[in-house]
Amino acid sequence: MAVIGTAGAEVLIPLAAVIGIAFAVFQWYVVAKVPVPSHDGEDGGGAAAQKGRSGHDESAEDGVDYRQVEARCAEIQHAISIGATSFLFTEYRYLAVFMAGFAVVIFMFLGSAQRFSTRPEPCTYDPARLCRPALANAAFSMIAFLLGALTSVMSGYLGMRVATFANARTALEARRGVGRAFVVAFRSGAAMGFLLASSALFVLYVAINLFGVYYGDDWGGLYESITGYGLGGSSMALFGRVGGGIYTKAADVGADLVGKVERNIPEDDPRNPEVIADNVGDNVGDIAGMGSDLFGSYAESSCAALFVASISSFGTEHNFAAMMYPLLISAMGIVVCLATTVVATDLAEVKTVEEIGPALKRQILISTVLMTVGIAIVSFLVLPHSFTLFDFGRRKLVKNWYLFICVSAGLWAGLVIGYVSRPVQAVANSCRTGAATNVIFGLAVGYKSVIVPIFAIATAIYASFRLAAMYGIALAALGMLSTIATGLSIDAYGPISDNAGGIAEMSGMPHVVRERTDALDAAGNTTAAIGKGFAIGSAALVSLALFGAYVSRAGVAAVDVLSPRVFAGLLVGAMLPYWFSAMTMRSVGSAALAMVEEVRRQFDSIPGLMEGTAKPDYATCVKISTDASLKKMLAPGALVMLSPLVAGTLFGTETLAGLLAGALVSGVQVAISASNSGGAWDNAKKYIEAGASAEARALGPKGSDAHKAAVIGDTIGDPLKDTSGPSLNILIKLMAVEALVFAPFFAAHGGLIFKHL
Amino acid sequence: MAVIGTAGAEVLIPLAAVIGIAFAVFQWYVVAKVPVPSHDGEDGGGAAAQKGRSGHDESAEDGVDYRQVEARCAEIQHAISIGATSFLFTEYRYLAVFMAGFAVVIFMFLGSAQRFSTRPEPCTYDPARLCRPALANAAFSMIAFLLGALTSVMSGYLGMRVATFANARTALEARRGVGRAFVVAFRSGAAMGFLLASSALFVLYVAINLFGVYYGDDWGGLYESITGYGLGGSSMALFGRVGGGIYTKAADVGADLVGKVERNIPEDDPRNPEVIADNVGDNVGDIAGMGSDLFGSYAESSCAALFVASISSFGTEHNFAAMMYPLLISAMGIVVCLATTVVATDLAEVKTVEEIGPALKRQILISTVLMTVGIAIVSFLVLPHSFTLFDFGRRKLVKNWYLFICVSAGLWAGLVIGYVSRPVQAVANSCRTGAATNVIFGLAVGYKSVIVPIFAIATAIYASFRLAAMYGIALAALGMLSTIATGLSIDAYGPISDNAGGIAEMSGMPHVVRERTDALDAAGNTTAAIGKGFAIGSAALVSLALFGAYVSRAGVAAVDVLSPRVFAGLLVGAMLPYWFSAMTMRSVGSAALAMVEEVRRQFDSIPGLMEGTAKPDYATCVKISTDASLKKMLAPGALVMLSPLVAGTLFGTETLAGLLAGALVSGVQVAISASNSGGAWDNAKKYIEAGASAEARALGPKGSDAHKAAVIGDTIGDPLKDTSGPSLNILIKLMAVEALVFAPFFAAHGGLIFKHL
Repeated sequence: MAVIGTAGAEVLIPLAAVIGIAFAVFQWYVVAKVPVPSHDGEDGGGAAAQKGRSGHDESAEDGVDYRQVEARCAEIQHAISIGATSFLFTEYRYLAVFMAGFAVVIFMFLGSAQRFSTRPEPCTYDPARLCRPALANAAFSMIAFLLGALTSVMSGYLGMRVATFANARTALEARRGVGRAFVVAFRSGAAMGFLLASSALFVLYVAINLFGVYYGDDWGGLYESITGYGLGGSSMALFGRVGGGIYTKAADVGADLVGKVERNIPEDDPRNPEVIADNVGDNVGDIAGMGSDLFGSYAESSCAALFVASISSFGTEHNFAAMMYPLLISAMGIVVCLATTVVATDLAEVKTVEEIGPALKRQILISTVLMTVGIAIVSFLVLPHSFTLFDFGRRKLVKNWYLFICVSAGLWAGLVIGYVSRPVQAVANSCRTGAATNVIFGLAVGYKSVIVPIFAIATAIYASFRLAAMYGIALAALGMLSTIATGLSIDAYGPISDNAGGIAEMSGMPHVVRERTDALDAAGNTTAAIGKGFAIGSAALVSLALFGAYVSRAGVAAVDVLSPRVFAGLLVGAMLPYWFSAMTMRSVGSAALAMVEEVRRQFDSIPGLMEGTAKPDYATCVKISTDASLKKMLAPGALVMLSPLVAGTLFGTETLAGLLAGALVSGVQVAISASNSGGAWDNAKKYIEAGASAEARALGPKGSDAHKAAVIGDTIGDPLKDTSGPSLNILIKLMAVEALVFAPFFAAHGGLIFKHL
Repeated sequence: MAVIGTAGAEVLIPLAAVIGIAFAVFQWYVVAKVPVPSHDGEDGGGAAAQKGRSGHDESAEDGVDYRQVEARCAEIQHAISIGATSFLFTEYRYLAVFMAGFAVVIFMFLGSAQRFSTRPEPCTYDPARLCRPALANAAFSMIAFLLGALTSVMSGYLGMRVATFANARTALEARRGVGRAFVVAFRSGAAMGFLLASSALFVLYVAINLFGVYYGDDWGGLYESITGYGLGGSSMALFGRVGGGIYTKAADVGADLVGKVERNIPEDDPRNPEVIADNVGDNVGDIAGMGSDLFGSYAESSCAALFVASISSFGTEHNFAAMMYPLLISAMGIVVCLATTVVATDLAEVKTVEEIGPALKRQILISTVLMTVGIAIVSFLVLPHSFTLFDFGRRKLVKNWYLFICVSAGLWAGLVIGYVSRPVQAVANSCRTGAATNVIFGLAVGYKSVIVPIFAIATAIYASFRLAAMYGIALAALGMLSTIATGLSIDAYGPISDNAGGIAEMSGMPHVVRERTDALDAAGNTTAAIGKGFAIGSAALVSLALFGAYVSRAGVAAVDVLSPRVFAGLLVGAMLPYWFSAMTMRSVGSAALAMVEEVRRQFDSIPGLMEGTAKPDYATCVKISTDASLKKMLAPGALVMLSPLVAGTLFGTETLAGLLAGALVSGVQVAISASNSGGAWDNAKKYIEAGASAEARALGPKGSDAHKAAVIGDTIGDPLKDTSGPSLNILIKLMAVEALVFAPFFAAHGGLIFKHL
């Protein structure tokens, strides 16, 4: 009945992935054409050529020595790149140990579910047939875990490489106009976005096919093992987000408190000892961390959908094309995002500062509209007209257009979440009466910002749940992430612009260039909030889908709140986001304290530092951030990784189900409010600094009491919006995917304590 | 089998209530013996006598004119009392309109459940028998609602009267030593605590007996109607807490920002125009609001227990003494608290400042230990050896010692919550680097403070749920509240001491007196945190019990998280505390802004104000607080009152069940963290101001940068700990009791929208 069969799916998925990768490489190639001299200053040819070409360079009259500026640019870029690379490699050494250890844990726990028997077992959902032994599932889950972990690490690393490659080029191109700089930054973001989305799809597709060689007809076992891919992706993302988040915010908070508030020197001033650490932080936290995070969401929602499909009629009837529906949606997403990107880079030119924000927002709108059509095409070409889905023990008859609605519900819910406006003016105004009222209003704004996203998510959940049970939820999550390439482009664009601004300032470019990069950055801040909305919304949907899959796999009959086991789990689960946030906030706070002391020490003890005649000791600040983040990421990481294991092993599957539901419904709120409070303070500060309206000018200028109050708010928001908030997405989905992977063990041996109480 | 029968219960409950009331009156009588001249200064006799008596007055050498000081004291006390009374009466006018309107809503909704039929109906839980018509239940629910509302209002009002009667007396007594002042403040708290606990018990007892005249054998209908008592109590408490909270914090935040930070004048300085509003606020927010709040918790947990018991074997077998078990526990609580109070007031004398805190904490420990014995006595004397309880459709066999464990579990969980330590030093230290790090650390402390209470509550829930289903939960809540008289004594002690300090400062008493009242106040702050812990913990248990009763009454088969209706409710419910907090925080913020502007205006425009030669315009500040709180309490109040009605009517009983569970598990966390963050900032500020250690002195003195940072933190914490946090307790339990009261309507006609989707 469906138009596209197995062969079609086998061709289209890798094709889209390859096209996406090629497109990413093309973007990188275009960006690379902006010449930057090699950092040791020997290769001045490119720079000279650039200078010669730039006949319409608006800043040429400033009398700035461009040869020197370009050489400084290259030097700074090199320093940032070296700093970021060295941090990531140190972090990866820790993660390698964790990966190896946890791979063993997976193998031992899952293997022990059937006492390491190598005999085929009766299939879980069709006991009349024989399936592969649990030991094989343990081994393949472990492999999938490692694969996911490696892909996640690679995603983060490549993103960082692209970003540190693009930052100086954006700064240099900003001399030639804001439109030019925008395109460079945006193309770089796209290079990262497409690389990540396409390789995630490609690796998953290859893994399914390779695993299939062994599993053959046992699709239940195949897709159960594949969920390890999601676990690997998200566990790396957790450490990336937490470690990177502590790194970047320790540096940022320290910079703001001493540089801006005490010494009254501008942001990114090269005299500030931690300016390099701050810029490195943007790349390891916002870029590498976020890349891993969204890769994790993508991997998990695909795995959740595949797992649920494998125990539905697609799986039992071995309809491969229909099974691949989630991957085909992602493939279509790559094509749609490609078309969307071309609009920004080639069709609609950005000429003025005011056009940047709307241009980025338009990207999201265009991709959403196009993708709705794309979803319809895939749904009607791939799916049979009607089929049955697994709905917790019952079979549910579903029509193909139901799934179209499920995917679209997620997609449009994402748009709604992204487009919720965040009131800046009231928060900025409250700075008139000092930092305290600023913080009170910012907290209120954050709390309030939860309302619309929650109604959007709840509506998407209700609709897709009703139409297609847990499969519908997984598809809604995929729908929200289907335009991930565009989402990531926009997200990565922000920190790249931020870095470009830093490089412009540090290399001594004229004021007009810095103004342009500031404008790029300000637009990026708004859209970063959109990106965070997507990350949180998709995390909520993904973890609900994983939760449903876990409940099915663990054989929990009902997650009844009126059972003491479930309710106790629910209550404690709702507490976990607070425990987690307490650790991350405290880590940033104490790292920032150390940073402040060091920066104060340098200002006090290095003669000529304030006058610009002596160079600060950048390396010590980098070391403080590195040490703090690596040491402090372990405890929150352990909390997230161990909670499901402890709850499942000691208190059983029902309590774990409650724990997951509690962490989900509570974590989403904390994450959204933390992100938006932080965003509101950040924007209020920028609003005062920009002085674009009479009211804003009345509050300013920089250094005024109101501005100082705004900086305090911004500083408080830093760890909320860039460390705690985004990490909570990972907390809720990681716990759910971990529960799913370990479900066979918990079902067999879980609940040691409650068995006796 | 049980030793105490119907006659025993009929005698013992009112007897304990009367003893409690008599004890309260006695405490008041003792306090009243401290003479205060009438406020117009005519009655100087008492003051003169006092002066004559105070041969050992340590401050006599200060050369202060005591006649004048005492007259000023009386004048200020009068101003505070007038301000508080006038605010409460204005508030009550609003509430009277609400009460009347909502009483009609109750009658119409519940009456319409059976189309206003006056014929007897088949009983809900025993359809073979005939019970009273739904119309009668509607009428009696309405009467119970009004009764609860009036008792709640009366509790708040009487508390305020006691507190404004005691504040000046405590200040005057502080001249004669810290121990004397402590006893006056503590006796006044006890007067309020016993009055409230005893009258709550007495009114409930009388209502049950009067309703019983009509209902006769239909105990199901009787106790269903009685739940209106809890609804009335908590709905008044909501407005009391929110209105009072906004009032007091608008004044407090405004006072701190201009007085302390900008003008560098001490707290409670009479030159500060809003000093009267601030002191009035303590009485209407912390005293009247809290009185209503704890009365609500008490009424609801009693009603929940009675309702569940009425559909268990106690009810069906008409074992009156066993039915009255919850009231007998409360009666025993009054006796135990009476003994405990005598220890503080007469047996163990407080002589030095350091002894105050431990003395208050000891009160809680003593009452908990004694009460454990008391519970055992009641349990074994009143309950049959074994009996059956209603457990969601099934009957559960329970032994009498199970109930002993349930009540004790709640009692001891309360102690654990109260005794969790709150780290002050780290927060104070973080002030070294400014307000931003102070806020970050304070937030982290608040988040972290959730861990222990949640584990304590979860353990109590699991144990009592397993042993006696929902009845067990209701009893655990009652257990936590069984020592409410002592809890309230300690809670009320705090604001009374705070006010005493204000009066000492304003009336120009010597410095040493102010130091003593400050010490009294500081101890009160720590114990106020304990009181808040009790309020939150009991709210969590109460609302779970009410939730269970609602599920039974509405005939919801299972609250399965894996139903889209339940999950959507759960997610939205978890959002409601944020929505609510956004409104209350914003209200305090904007009222504080208005207050700051007004105070600045007065300092700028009234010549001689700073010099103390001109009087500020107190009345305008009182008006700003009054107007803001009355106007701004409506929206959050409406959110809480309407959410269950909308969810039940439009989306049905299952979604409402999800909503309640979500609001419960999320609201508890927000409430605890808000209270403790606020408390940590407050204590850090006090720690720096007191300068008791070398480290604290290094951070101080008052007016230093670290101290200013601490004041900012304290100001941010004010609305969190005294407006949003405590109101959230009421949110979660009020929504649950409302759902229970309206359950017959929702069961009959609910879910208009989801019926068609």
